[in-house]
Amino acid sequence: MSSAATPRGPVAVVGTGVIGASWAAHFLGRGLEVVASDPADGALDRLQESVERTWPVLERLGVADGASPDRLSFSPDPATAVEGAVFVQESAVESLVLKQDLLRRLDDATPTSAVIASSSSAIRPTDLQATCHRAPERVLVGHPFHPPHLTPLVEVVGGRRTGEPHVAAAMDFYRRVGKEPVRIRAEVVGHVANRLQAALWREAFSLVEKGVISVADLDTTIASGPGLRWAVLGPFATLALTGGDGGMTQVLDHLGPTMTALWDDLETPVLDEALRATVVAGVQHESELLGPAATQAARDHVLIDILDRKRSAARRTP
Amino acid sequence: MSSAATPRGPVAVVGTGVIGASWAAHFLGRGLEVVASDPADGALDRLQESVERTWPVLERLGVADGASPDRLSFSPDPATAVEGAVFVQESAVESLVLKQDLLRRLDDATPTSAVIASSSSAIRPTDLQATCHRAPERVLVGHPFHPPHLTPLVEVVGGRRTGEPHVAAAMDFYRRVGKEPVRIRAEVVGHVANRLQAALWREAFSLVEKGVISVADLDTTIASGPGLRWAVLGPFATLALTGGDGGMTQVLDHLGPTMTALWDDLETPVLDEALRATVVAGVQHESELLGPAATQAARDHVLIDILDRKRSAARRTP
Repeated sequence: MSSAATPRGPVAVVGTGVIGASWAAHFLGRGLEVVASDPADGALDRLQESVERTWPVLERLGVADGASPDRLSFSPDPATAVEGAVFVQESAVESLVLKQDLLRRLDDATPTSAVIASSSSAIRPTDLQATCHRAPERVLVGHPFHPPHLTPLVEVVGGRRTGEPHVAAAMDFYRRVGKEPVRIRAEVVGHVANRLQAALWREAFSLVEKGVISVADLDTTIASGPGLRWAVLGPFATLALTGGDGGMTQVLDHLGPTMTALWDDLETPVLDEALRATVVAGVQHESELLGPAATQAARDHVLIDILDRKRSAARRTP
Repeated sequence: MSSAATPRGPVAVVGTGVIGASWAAHFLGRGLEVVASDPADGALDRLQESVERTWPVLERLGVADGASPDRLSFSPDPATAVEGAVFVQESAVESLVLKQDLLRRLDDATPTSAVIASSSSAIRPTDLQATCHRAPERVLVGHPFHPPHLTPLVEVVGGRRTGEPHVAAAMDFYRRVGKEPVRIRAEVVGHVANRLQAALWREAFSLVEKGVISVADLDTTIASGPGLRWAVLGPFATLALTGGDGGMTQVLDHLGPTMTALWDDLETPVLDEALRATVVAGVQHESELLGPAATQAARDHVLIDILDRKRSAARRTP
């Protein structure tokens, strides 16, 4: 991978918990200079350990020319960390009060040319920018999908006061550092990815609640069935392909009524003690089948393989 | 792959349209003898062409010792085709009247020791076996996920008169021929895979209807986000992993209320002309971005790569 198009100047990573540390590793892997900040005791040590642990994975995926874990610096004071930053990625604890206070301070200290993106999964950007007085138009949400150093998705959401050029700048920045940003045009609970996940989980819990299938078999249904395609093309493209040359028009003509009838047949499960117990026991049984320690390792290995193969395929196709 | 555990005797493939032809290719690739049947003019020629076209893909995935497209024979009469069969896979047109008549004739002609599985996606096995008088207990649904020669999933569903030993025999047969069967314990519309797909599509159409995201960006959200994991582990296992050592119990304690709140916030879109037009145009735009001819090829290439990598990972893990 080339580092030619990466930004000139440091990226500030504010908040270095699990998400922030993964962002820092990702940016370092793309050859950027990173200035991190976190108020917690021992934060720098934990961050350095985390980057070190992640580095071999980044190397497997391909690091940029000149990339080095040594391009990481640290300041406990967030205002100092963002001085001179070309982009700020805030990943503090998910608390409205705390984030509003922090973002106000970041807004005051960050060059106005830089976007300030929050990793928040649940707080609306309109609320995040409410306390910013200097340049609230560059404050937005850049929500990663865990873990940021592996999963390309970033959901970009502007608030009521966010400027269109700043949204475009954030999309551009994320693309240049190897992410796949998507533009979310309205502030809805859960953005998009978590809503789509919730929709799948809702029906999964519902089918187990009704005794239609076991937890382990439901997981197999996805991982050996439709999930194999969703890793390659999303749900709309997959649906359109089933229409052959007629594409989506043909699909909606022929399968539309069947699909909407199924929509009406889906139910919302009640997550009571009985369903909780069934799901907990089912996952336990499944992890015994799969081998408990193997599960996490297998997931990351195969995830890296899939990303690798998708990239090769993208290069192969004209 | 070994052919040691494959059944002794021919498998009958009744109905050789797109699904039946793919089943025939899969069974041949696993080293089985296949007797096919279809009443349509030119069916044998089309089947042979299809098997020939599919063979290089099967070879990439690994064919069994002794596997050959020459182990295919054909009879226009289904009763002749199933004589001596050890397993029957019926993939006729999705019509209740037609399938009931066909299954009655297959039941009369197939050795009672053999399971008769229907590929039906929409007809209940209880209705499929209603006209069978000889041994209805071995009639069940074995619903593949398209295309059967690539996608491992088979949904096994018994009807009211299906016997438990026959369900077990079908699960065992599918496993031995390299499929991943799941046991569906109730006759519900869409079995399980199509319901889970419908749940995802429902929210996808809903988000596009509300103008939250474009069709292309929604597809990216899945294919560069949660979809990458669903190809490896299903939705329950993925959810449990986010709980770390605390597993699913921890997840439900901490994320349960957020998840169920999202369930209640999901809406059912109205698939009217306006939404149809938006989705058709969105997919068109997306396929221009991706390159239209590349899409299908890329999908199959990457699908094969993913299956290959999952197998290697399964061998690697202890």
